[in-house]
Amino acid sequence: MAEHNTVLENTLRKLLEDRKYLSAKDVLSTMNPSDIASVLDELGKDELPKLFRLLPKELAADAFVEMDSDRQQLLIQGFSDTELRQVLDELYVDDAVDIVEEMPANVVRRILEQADPEMRKDINQILRYPEDSAGSVMTTEYVSLRSGMSVGEAIEHIRKTGYDKETIYTCYVTDRRKLIGTISVKDLLLAKDDNIEIGELIETHFISVNTHTDQEEVAQIFSRYNLLALPVVDSEGLIVGIITVDDAMDVMEEEATEDMEIMAGVTPSDKTYMKSSALELFRHRIPWLMILMVSATFTGLIITGFESALSRMVVLTAFIPMLMDTGGNSGSQSSVTVIRALSLGEVEYSDVPRVILKEFTTALLCGLVLALICFMKIMLIDRLLMQNPSVTAAVALVVCLTMALTVVVAKVIGCSLPVLAKKLGFDPAVMASPFITTIVDALSLLIYFSMTRAILI
Amino acid sequence: MAEHNTVLENTLRKLLEDRKYLSAKDVLSTMNPSDIASVLDELGKDELPKLFRLLPKELAADAFVEMDSDRQQLLIQGFSDTELRQVLDELYVDDAVDIVEEMPANVVRRILEQADPEMRKDINQILRYPEDSAGSVMTTEYVSLRSGMSVGEAIEHIRKTGYDKETIYTCYVTDRRKLIGTISVKDLLLAKDDNIEIGELIETHFISVNTHTDQEEVAQIFSRYNLLALPVVDSEGLIVGIITVDDAMDVMEEEATEDMEIMAGVTPSDKTYMKSSALELFRHRIPWLMILMVSATFTGLIITGFESALSRMVVLTAFIPMLMDTGGNSGSQSSVTVIRALSLGEVEYSDVPRVILKEFTTALLCGLVLALICFMKIMLIDRLLMQNPSVTAAVALVVCLTMALTVVVAKVIGCSLPVLAKKLGFDPAVMASPFITTIVDALSLLIYFSMTRAILI
Repeated sequence: MAEHNTVLENTLRKLLEDRKYLSAKDVLSTMNPSDIASVLDELGKDELPKLFRLLPKELAADAFVEMDSDRQQLLIQGFSDTELRQVLDELYVDDAVDIVEEMPANVVRRILEQADPEMRKDINQILRYPEDSAGSVMTTEYVSLRSGMSVGEAIEHIRKTGYDKETIYTCYVTDRRKLIGTISVKDLLLAKDDNIEIGELIETHFISVNTHTDQEEVAQIFSRYNLLALPVVDSEGLIVGIITVDDAMDVMEEEATEDMEIMAGVTPSDKTYMKSSALELFRHRIPWLMILMVSATFTGLIITGFESALSRMVVLTAFIPMLMDTGGNSGSQSSVTVIRALSLGEVEYSDVPRVILKEFTTALLCGLVLALICFMKIMLIDRLLMQNPSVTAAVALVVCLTMALTVVVAKVIGCSLPVLAKKLGFDPAVMASPFITTIVDALSLLIYFSMTRAILI
Repeated sequence: MAEHNTVLENTLRKLLEDRKYLSAKDVLSTMNPSDIASVLDELGKDELPKLFRLLPKELAADAFVEMDSDRQQLLIQGFSDTELRQVLDELYVDDAVDIVEEMPANVVRRILEQADPEMRKDINQILRYPEDSAGSVMTTEYVSLRSGMSVGEAIEHIRKTGYDKETIYTCYVTDRRKLIGTISVKDLLLAKDDNIEIGELIETHFISVNTHTDQEEVAQIFSRYNLLALPVVDSEGLIVGIITVDDAMDVMEEEATEDMEIMAGVTPSDKTYMKSSALELFRHRIPWLMILMVSATFTGLIITGFESALSRMVVLTAFIPMLMDTGGNSGSQSSVTVIRALSLGEVEYSDVPRVILKEFTTALLCGLVLALICFMKIMLIDRLLMQNPSVTAAVALVVCLTMALTVVVAKVIGCSLPVLAKKLGFDPAVMASPFITTIVDALSLLIYFSMTRAILI
């Protein structure tokens, strides 16, 4: 796993120092590209290119793809033109695009200069699609077949042209670039007769996405239909590329992380946690903290408006945190559940009435039970055990009614805001704990003070 | 996507009513198993078996796997033994296990009776592995090759035995069931010569997991190494099954949903949101709400202990929500970020010192900036704009010092508790917003009142 394998790093460092290059090479060639990348990421500026040059060409390119972008940049800047070209030749187009996107302009220029003309064209094409679209994550290296081919011819074609394709397991049957069907290598290999025309075997009810389809939807499609690859077509149904399942998994992981970060009031970052400096973390966290802090002014104003009553009955203050927190927690439960259901495509705008009814019923149940427990808690712990005479049954009643009402309000708001946000084109994940808490805080206090006015004063 | 395609459902319902079975069959055969399952899930008790019986055998089994378990049960109970056997014959073992796990005992008995002896043995074996382990999600249908085979023989072997394998694209080279290497169909097809022994081509540095490896780790391995399938071996290195990438994607999605639910104080559920009744939602939400509500007693006690001071300076009460919320938000940011990094295997116990240092520095920056902004906000809005004479510079100072200190404490606690929880064998996701908020609430009040005592009184 992602362990920092310091023993291995030190061994390789030592082998390099002692110029035991052959042994270092032998060690590297037992390793997986991802693990080699982890080791390379930890090496010093001088050791990195030395070790990298020991790698066999293909393994070098595979490891290169998995490295951190600052390490990639360091290597590219040290590469001769020939070396750069050798690495580029081994890359898949989508990986090349990922690298180009992270590099400064002068490095990008060098990469494009050294890439062969076809790859250069493909990179430029993919770069033009909007970020997070299917077009931006696809690759252009797929196996294309004609429906007139026999099974035997198709297999022969794959054997001849498959080498630099990102996947050969799903092949795309086209007619003047229009995608008319898909066929898997499994179906080809298991066909009873090599002479059957593949036109008879192809799946014509295939699933495809458009270049502008959002990558989150792409990941959902992969998971729903258990695909290994998904064709990307333009508005005329011409195939422009494919997305493979490993990239879909990355998207899925990325989107889940992003949702969690936004839900916690953190601006999402491309960098992983351990690679982010404190300054970067600060920059991604301070905006929400500031917005939410300033929004809490309203809550303060509500309390200030009730100051005279609070000064007479300070006992009411003691219940404020509990009421606010329970409201916030109830709201977060609903909002996070709904946000996730939206992300997985399980809830849509048309489900709003069902969702609200469901949450309302749940909230009534929760509110009722919490109010009862709360009443007992207040009478037993606060009044009897702590012997606080100002905690009267009337106070307990006000607190518990507020509790029940706050839970209902919190859950209804918590489930509605994410759906509304999505409808308005915002990210529903914004409507999670921090945001809901701030709103529910203010509402719970308003309910609390209204109840106090109605019952106690 | 998961749209409720009511038009299609109604069309099929109408075709059934009018006994236009041939047309209904034609419509179904243009559809994908997942989409058919969505439609079947919405049909009535009487229509369901009718429509299901129209499906071609293989498509029927594929759709069956994707249906809701209560619908599957309904169908099985209506099946004749022959029908049940036909569906079972088409299932992969891991899918059969998933179904068996959801069924009541009498249905399970019938399934096991009708399954062929080998499948029955495999189902029973997989059922014995602990929930969420690699063994429980694997399948036993993989292609096994011998290293002495030539490329041509291997391809021939795949063509003969591949039909009921869950994947043929990665083949497993074994010697008396001991896994000695893997080889992809791509490598076989692209081999230069059909007469080469596959022993020369196989990958001997393959990645495998143990039957007891946690499924979350399995998903991480897939995503890290871009695999299509992963062999599962027992303690002696004998291969017992494989896990395919589609199952790994499901695990990934499931684990992310589970983490988000726990982070929001919801006990995870196997059922999707739209399928859960209000009562079920209630049952999954009330425990945490109750625990957290009762824990808030401490916060109340702290306020009660400070009652006399608060009754003299009610202005202090107005800042309590802001201080508590900002503390809670700061803590959640850190805890959620660290929980996610733990889930992705990016942070481990040995990283604790680095994590705490990083969070401490970030917290200092955030605390400083927030305190400054807060001071200005209080002096400008609360004092000047709202003309509240009791908001003095000294009060502002107390609030801002509390703010800075609370943010630091919250972030350090927020990042440490998840790692600690993991070390102690608990789910780190428990240490998210609701839990952290409760702790930080109490701490922020303690800091607030200590500051007040030191500076104001």
